Amino acid sequence: MTDVMERAGLLDASDPLAHFRNRFVVPDGVIYLDGNSLGALPVGVAERLRDIVQDEWGRGLIRSWNDANWYPAPIRIGDRIGGLIGAAPGQVAVCDSTSINLFKVLCAALRAAPDRNVLIVERDNFPTNTYIAHSVADLLNVAVVSVESGDVADLNAAVEDAGERLAVVSLTEVNYKTGWRYSMPSVTDRVHSVGGRMVWDLCHSAGAFPVDLDGCGVDYAVGCTYKYLNGGPGAPAFVYVAARHLDGFDQPLHGWHGHAAPFSFDAAFEPAPGIDRALAGTAAQLSLLALEAALDAFDGVDMNALRAKSLALTDLFMEVIDAQRASDIEIVTPRSEHDRGSQVALRHPNGYAIVQALIARNVIGDFRAPDVLRFGFAPLYLSHTEVVRAALELVDVVTTRAWDRPEFTTRRTVT
Amino acid sequence: MTDVMERAGLLDASDPLAHFRNRFVVPDGVIYLDGNSLGALPVGVAERLRDIVQDEWGRGLIRSWNDANWYPAPIRIGDRIGGLIGAAPGQVAVCDSTSINLFKVLCAALRAAPDRNVLIVERDNFPTNTYIAHSVADLLNVAVVSVESGDVADLNAAVEDAGERLAVVSLTEVNYKTGWRYSMPSVTDRVHSVGGRMVWDLCHSAGAFPVDLDGCGVDYAVGCTYKYLNGGPGAPAFVYVAARHLDGFDQPLHGWHGHAAPFSFDAAFEPAPGIDRALAGTAAQLSLLALEAALDAFDGVDMNALRAKSLALTDLFMEVIDAQRASDIEIVTPRSEHDRGSQVALRHPNGYAIVQALIARNVIGDFRAPDVLRFGFAPLYLSHTEVVRAALELVDVVTTRAWDRPEFTTRRTVT
Repeated sequence: MTDVMERAGLLDASDPLAHFRNRFVVPDGVIYLDGNSLGALPVGVAERLRDIVQDEWGRGLIRSWNDANWYPAPIRIGDRIGGLIGAAPGQVAVCDSTSINLFKVLCAALRAAPDRNVLIVERDNFPTNTYIAHSVADLLNVAVVSVESGDVADLNAAVEDAGERLAVVSLTEVNYKTGWRYSMPSVTDRVHSVGGRMVWDLCHSAGAFPVDLDGCGVDYAVGCTYKYLNGGPGAPAFVYVAARHLDGFDQPLHGWHGHAAPFSFDAAFEPAPGIDRALAGTAAQLSLLALEAALDAFDGVDMNALRAKSLALTDLFMEVIDAQRASDIEIVTPRSEHDRGSQVALRHPNGYAIVQALIARNVIGDFRAPDVLRFGFAPLYLSHTEVVRAALELVDVVTTRAWDRPEFTTRRTVT
Repeated sequence: MTDVMERAGLLDASDPLAHFRNRFVVPDGVIYLDGNSLGALPVGVAERLRDIVQDEWGRGLIRSWNDANWYPAPIRIGDRIGGLIGAAPGQVAVCDSTSINLFKVLCAALRAAPDRNVLIVERDNFPTNTYIAHSVADLLNVAVVSVESGDVADLNAAVEDAGERLAVVSLTEVNYKTGWRYSMPSVTDRVHSVGGRMVWDLCHSAGAFPVDLDGCGVDYAVGCTYKYLNGGPGAPAFVYVAARHLDGFDQPLHGWHGHAAPFSFDAAFEPAPGIDRALAGTAAQLSLLALEAALDAFDGVDMNALRAKSLALTDLFMEVIDAQRASDIEIVTPRSEHDRGSQVALRHPNGYAIVQALIARNVIGDFRAPDVLRFGFAPLYLSHTEVVRAALELVDVVTTRAWDRPEFTTRRTVT
């Protein structure tokens, strides 16, 4: 393994993104491979939040809705995220959770096509996506067709079968468990070819690699901001509505912040002309403004360079595991660059305990039932050397059965 | 006015709640009468938030969902709010916004009574309540009957008229504009007498005076936490579901945090057995935990003493305005103690400019279109003397027409 460690060192020495590590607080000694669950803390967030609390809330009080520009924050921050996902200004709002934003776009997309009654979703998507899809279908009386996640032939067959009955296809670009990635341009085109509309969940895409929503002609998208965008625990989610659909965007969570003139306090709901109509109630400003500060970490980042580093990191990780032939470990994530995001998923019957044993060694990944070990690679704060070291620790834990101790095998509530 | 100022001084000297002022950061010289819009900053929140960001997020990273008890926070904090609104543990969750929580309870309440098809709401409720009610009624195909806010005879007639068709009545206990207050026990009883269910919005009640949800047999309630509960700008809202309705509580925002076993990642939605089923997506933890720290300000507060002080403050305020007979000023809020909350609303054709002129004098209230001046009285951080001084400034601004200057009459976006 000296060879791969040497290569990692050379890659670090010439890494054009290496200096971005300084924009994050990562505890000494920790190799953090869980940025696909909760991104690391960007430098500056704590101070900014202190100012928001002490100066804007404490001293400015109610006046800060104007004077500190709290009110426009959901759209202002939406535009910043838009810059990272290929969305021109005016199409992205930051608000609520991914679950709730998915509810909004599914309702709006289905209402926009009242003569069509099929909603295609994935069988192995993140649970919230499945739950919300079925709940919306139930409310709006449309049929749900479930296809196998990552099986494009199955998806294409379902699209063809639905044909003119197809209203909406709702997929997550990168699967939360396997790391498998759909081709956004070709799937979107296929759905459009029969007149359907496309919803993409970008939870594992935004901030992880370049996304081109406008370029792919995507209709709607949602995503969280607490993974690769490092917005903080439970940071508000985003929602994208393509400009051509804004006028007709009719989502049922009619809150006052989605009104054309919220401070007229009109009794009749008239949706705001732009993306503001995706808003409902008052934004959780502390979480929202912490996210805004966190996004500074992406200032000046070349997303193509980010993607190149992400692929180098994940390649190195898989190379070490392959070479060591650790027993019972299966790499689930596809090897092809086109078919994966910025995570590597492994499968092992003792996955839970292995993840705990790794955490005890300061290598932090996570576990997804029943047997998946997930490792996320955030190129802004990870080095190639760290990734090789993490993989070596993993191999060691597996081959020495270091995981086989009660403190690792006993389950806790949240993993 | 020396008489009333003297009395205010005496009331301050014997005020059993006076020492709670030390639990808040109120800027020097500011008389803050807008705690019904954004509560003042409690001492300790800034420090707690610094620790959450630097230690729990920065150092604990993903582990803090377990180790720092982030995961149970919505229910843990819900129970604390429950203690202030007469709800036994296990019936309150803190999550999302008031708008979204209202959507949940209206949907669930209507679904629970499929053989009834009338939803009674108020004509002059806060706009979000009206928008959400109509949107839900549209989705679930029920009829909306609107009654005049504050007109109990109109409400009773509508309830009688609907009779066995009545599914739900949804009211805000204290009106956001007028400060008029419904009688929670008698209205709830009246609705129950024909088999309907009662939804109360407590935005202007929680933290402002004692509320007894369980005692009144209320079915559902919602409310925000950023007014009298001082949770910070846009802090997450709460939702109450009476224990007897939890099993049947079927709200359509089926997010993974509302699942019986969120970390099993099951494909089928099975709602959590308790109030957790009111949750949808991941909580905005920074805002949520700031609220938790803010609630410390209520530790040991006698809510009956709070109410007594609130009434004394509002009485003093109205007394000064009455005595000065300021031209064109009309007190909108009822004088009867039973019929009002903890705010005083005035009406004046130049209300907007008057509020701006007062803010320039460090007396902060707010304005609600078209002509209402709102003043909220948070008994934990206001003194009787301050309230008299604020009223005297108000009278001076009106009688000297100090408001009649371009910097006060020119409208800004948010007021």
